[in-house]
This record gives sequence, C-alpha cells and structure tokens, in this order.
Amino acid sequence: MITLNEGSGGKETHELIEKIRSVLKVTSDWKNSDDDSATLKFGDKHLVFTTDTFTVDPVFFPGGDIGKLAMCGTINDIAVMGAKPLGISFGLVLEEGFSENDLEKIVSSMDKVSEKTGIPVVTGDTKVMEKEKVDKIIINTSAVGITDNPITDSGLKPGDKIVVNGSIGDHGAALLAKRFGYVADFVSDCNPVLEDSQKLKGIATAMKDPTRGGIAGALNEMAEKSGVKIILDESKIPVKSGVKAISELLGISYYEMPCEGRIIAGIKESAKPPEGFVEIGRAEKGAGVFIDTGLSERKLNMPFGRLLPRIC
Amino acid sequence: MITLNEGSGGKETHELIEKIRSVLKVTSDWKNSDDDSATLKFGDKHLVFTTDTFTVDPVFFPGGDIGKLAMCGTINDIAVMGAKPLGISFGLVLEEGFSENDLEKIVSSMDKVSEKTGIPVVTGDTKVMEKEKVDKIIINTSAVGITDNPITDSGLKPGDKIVVNGSIGDHGAALLAKRFGYVADFVSDCNPVLEDSQKLKGIATAMKDPTRGGIAGALNEMAEKSGVKIILDESKIPVKSGVKAISELLGISYYEMPCEGRIIAGIKESAKPPEGFVEIGRAEKGAGVFIDTGLSERKLNMPFGRLLPRIC
Repeated sequence: MITLNEGSGGKETHELIEKIRSVLKVTSDWKNSDDDSATLKFGDKHLVFTTDTFTVDPVFFPGGDIGKLAMCGTINDIAVMGAKPLGISFGLVLEEGFSENDLEKIVSSMDKVSEKTGIPVVTGDTKVMEKEKVDKIIINTSAVGITDNPITDSGLKPGDKIVVNGSIGDHGAALLAKRFGYVADFVSDCNPVLEDSQKLKGIATAMKDPTRGGIAGALNEMAEKSGVKIILDESKIPVKSGVKAISELLGISYYEMPCEGRIIAGIKESAKPPEGFVEIGRAEKGAGVFIDTGLSERKLNMPFGRLLPRIC
Repeated sequence: MITLNEGSGGKETHELIEKIRSVLKVTSDWKNSDDDSATLKFGDKHLVFTTDTFTVDPVFFPGGDIGKLAMCGTINDIAVMGAKPLGISFGLVLEEGFSENDLEKIVSSMDKVSEKTGIPVVTGDTKVMEKEKVDKIIINTSAVGITDNPITDSGLKPGDKIVVNGSIGDHGAALLAKRFGYVADFVSDCNPVLEDSQKLKGIATAMKDPTRGGIAGALNEMAEKSGVKIILDESKIPVKSGVKAISELLGISYYEMPCEGRIIAGIKESAKPPEGFVEIGRAEKGAGVFIDTGLSERKLNMPFGRLLPRIC
C-alpha cells in the first residue's frame, strides 16, 4: 500500500521509483534517467527532457503560487543539467468549481516566469474532475532543452568545492509558516535558476536543485552517485535566523527543507565560486555526507519518513 | 467558476484553453501549439512535443487500463503529427493507500506499450496525496519526437479523402458499459497508432486522433483550421452494432465517443486509403462538418456540454 512517505522525496520515494523503474524494462540511448533530467545524444548536442507534478498546499504562498512553482521547478531541472529549456508544457487538473479568477492568477504567474526567462509555454492540456476526486489544482510541467555537455549528479571528484547560490530552506519555511498560521515574514525562494546555472558553465562538476528532501537529499544523491564523501562547514551554511527558528520549533531540519530557487553544485578545486555563490564544503575520498560542526563530524542522512506537509 | 463541461473536450474546453493561451503571451519559434503536438524547427528536422493528463474512471477497463491509455494517448499525439516519439515521461499522482499491486499492473501496461512501439519511458516523477485530495491515480505523460515534416490539422484541401483506420467509439462504449454495469463484450480500441500513421506518410494532408469529443470534435477542428467543409458518408462510417446500441440507449452520439486507437486523416484526392484504412468522406469548398444520410445532409456539430463521464 502506498503511503505519504513514498511521496516525500526521501528514502522511500527513491525505493518506489526504483520499483517502478525495474518494471519499465525497455532500454534506449537515453542517459541520466535517475538525474534531474534525462539526456539523449542528438547530433553534436544533447536533448534534455524532464517532468514534474506540483500539488502544493496552499496554492498561493508568500513569494509565489503553484503556477510560478510549476514553471520554476521544471525549468530548474533542465538548468541544473547545464542546459537551456527550449519549451515547456503544462497539464492542468482542476477541481470542478475552481475559481476562474484564481486560475487566471496562476496562469499569469506562469507567464511572468516565461517572460523573465524567455522560455515559452508551447503545449498544454486541461482536465476537470469532480470535487471529491481532486483538491483544487494539480499542475504537471514537462520541458525539453538542449546542451553541448550535460552536467550530472555523478561528476564530483575529491577536492571539488561545494557551492550554493543563497540561503537554504526558505521555500519550506514560508510554506510551513503559512500552513501553521505563524506570524512571520518568510518568503519562498521560488525562482528560476537559469542565469545562475549558466555562471557555473565550464567549472561545475555536478549540479542539483535541492527541492524535495532539501540539500540533505540532494547532497546524499550526489555523494552516492559520484562515490565521494561530502563534508560541509556548518558555519558557512547560509540559513536565515527565522528559518532556523521555525526549523527548531517544528523539529524539522532545515537541511531537509525544500528550496525552489537554489542550486547546489560541485565546482573544480581550482575554480572560484562565481558571484552570488558561497562555498559551503568540499568533496573528499570516502562516502556519505557529513557536517563539520567545529567540534565533530555529524552525519547528514538521506531524509526518510514523511518530511513535511506536501509543499512542492 | 470552472465546471465539468470545461473538461469534456468540446466547445467549452476549447474556450477555456483559448482563455489560458491569451494569458500566456510569450511567443517563440514553436508552431502548432493548438494542434496535437507543438513543433520546433531543429536543424533540418522538427522537434515535436506534447503533454496529456489521464484521469480515467474505472482505472482498469476492458481492453486496457490507465497506464496503457496514458502511453497510447501521448504516443498517438506525436504519431498524428507524422512524427516518431524519441522518449516519453510520466508524472504519477497517487492516492495514499493505493494498492502497490495495482500500481505494478499499471506500470507493466506502460512497459508493454513501450516494448511494442520501441518508445522508452525516460523520465518520471511520483507524488502521493492524502485520500481526500485525489482519487486513486492520475497520470501525466509527455513526449518529445522528431519528424522531417509535421502533418497538421490545417492541411485539408477540397477534394481530399477522409479516412479512418477502424471502427469508431469503441473506447467510449467500453468505458460506459463498464461504468453503468451493462453486460456487454465491448473492448476499448486503446492502442498505439504509430504503425498506421507511418502508412500515411507522403499522402496525408491532415491527421488527428479522435479522443475527447470523438470524430465529431476532431473533424470540426480539422474543417475549421483548414477552411473546408467535410462531408461524411453515413453508410461508410465503421461502427459496431453494439456501440450503436449503447449510443442510442444513453442518448450519446457515437460520433462524439472517444476513440483511443484511431487515426482520422485527410489524404490526397489521388491517393488510395492504405491497408487497414477506409474512406468515409471527403473535403469540399465551404465550412462545417456534415453527414450525408442518403436522404439529406445533417450537420455534425462540435460537441458541447458534459459529453460523457470522464473516460479518457
């Protein structure tokens, strides 16, 4: 029986995906199906293809809404492959009785991201379901992109620097604060990371957007696929004091809280973090992800169980 | 307020889609966004990209299940552009408590279509929602394909023959029979049409898969976009007697019943329908879709209102 744990982006999600993948036996020339996007050699370039379904509650939140999130989430999955999206699709599922006004707001948010990034919405589909069969709105977005050279999760080498382009956990904190009615001025970091991903061209060895499972999930995947140990310097992790506070209050690690406008990447040992990025750790020989607290090394596990109310 | 009518694939669906498209203002080099798939010139070829969300009830039906349907529906949207899909994505939304056994059956059905057509499932996403927020399972599939020359809905010329590759309304009839508990041996036509679409290469002037809205919806779109009148010969329409009977019983025109393994196409006046296709009418100067009953010409309107229980 499927449980909510399987949808949390942690260990159980990966197990479910592995089960599904084992049934889907047909192989092909596509690569990186277990990465942020799948890739296919295409002449002297690579096609990049990804999909994501968004079921965020609340639909409108500080810093965005489900439309902005659905655009950014999928654009970012292409961006962290070192690619540029060519076009994006959307599949809407609406609850009967959904407000046309809210729908227009959501589609407007999608359009704003489209305008900002230059990435067109090129195809779509709309379904309406009875009230008892769907809650409000579900959006799937898929995108096809192109790159000369895909950047995967598995390219980390010992010595590489780990960098991030902003404070962590902001999306998770903003949604949690709104859901639990805390008076707080958290704003989601929900944004396209396309410009920032381009800054890493030529120096990135691995890239990910730390959404479900936060940087704990993303870094554990990178460490495992690359066959390295990652060690983070706790004092260098950019995290807002309010995010830290809500994290402590709810007993949810901010390392596991989703970001929706962040890149976590490995860059070559010789490279300097580009403007807007900070160095937060390094890759070493070994396995696992650890946090150097100054006193000791604490293991940062792949998240498991039901991480959060469903917020991305 | 959104109603179920907007999800039926008829007039109201088209109006809703037009509203959404008017908000999404960013233009691009992509073409055919209002066709079965959008296309983008790419070197000397065209990329073809489409998306569809499937919410069929019942999930398992005679002749298939939601997994087979989700694969065929999206493969067929690429096929009727005269293209071959390169890869397909799936976005699963599962109800908490959904049976793992049923999930495996559904994914197995997807794999069987993948095996039959050689089209790999290359990327996916899985979400789990609370029982009160989603009913059973929703699947989005998107696909990217390639063609030398896209075949659109708008290419019909006066004189062209209208052809179809099998009996109409079988999917609709099978689902309705199951939903209403009729003892009948209807089987959905749910199948990939890739092989049949390839047979039309070089002779097709327009192609569509008549899903939501049936051939009434598909032909009205083709006639309008092409600026022609379509006239069907009622005596030549392939329709099973049982499908006719359930259609009369429920007062639902079989012309409006979805097919999930059919191509409706225009071919050049000089061409002969390939094996497996029958000629059912022709394009003329004028506008609208009409049925020649032998006694008179009856107008076949674009469907409107709530066509059917949601079955594709």
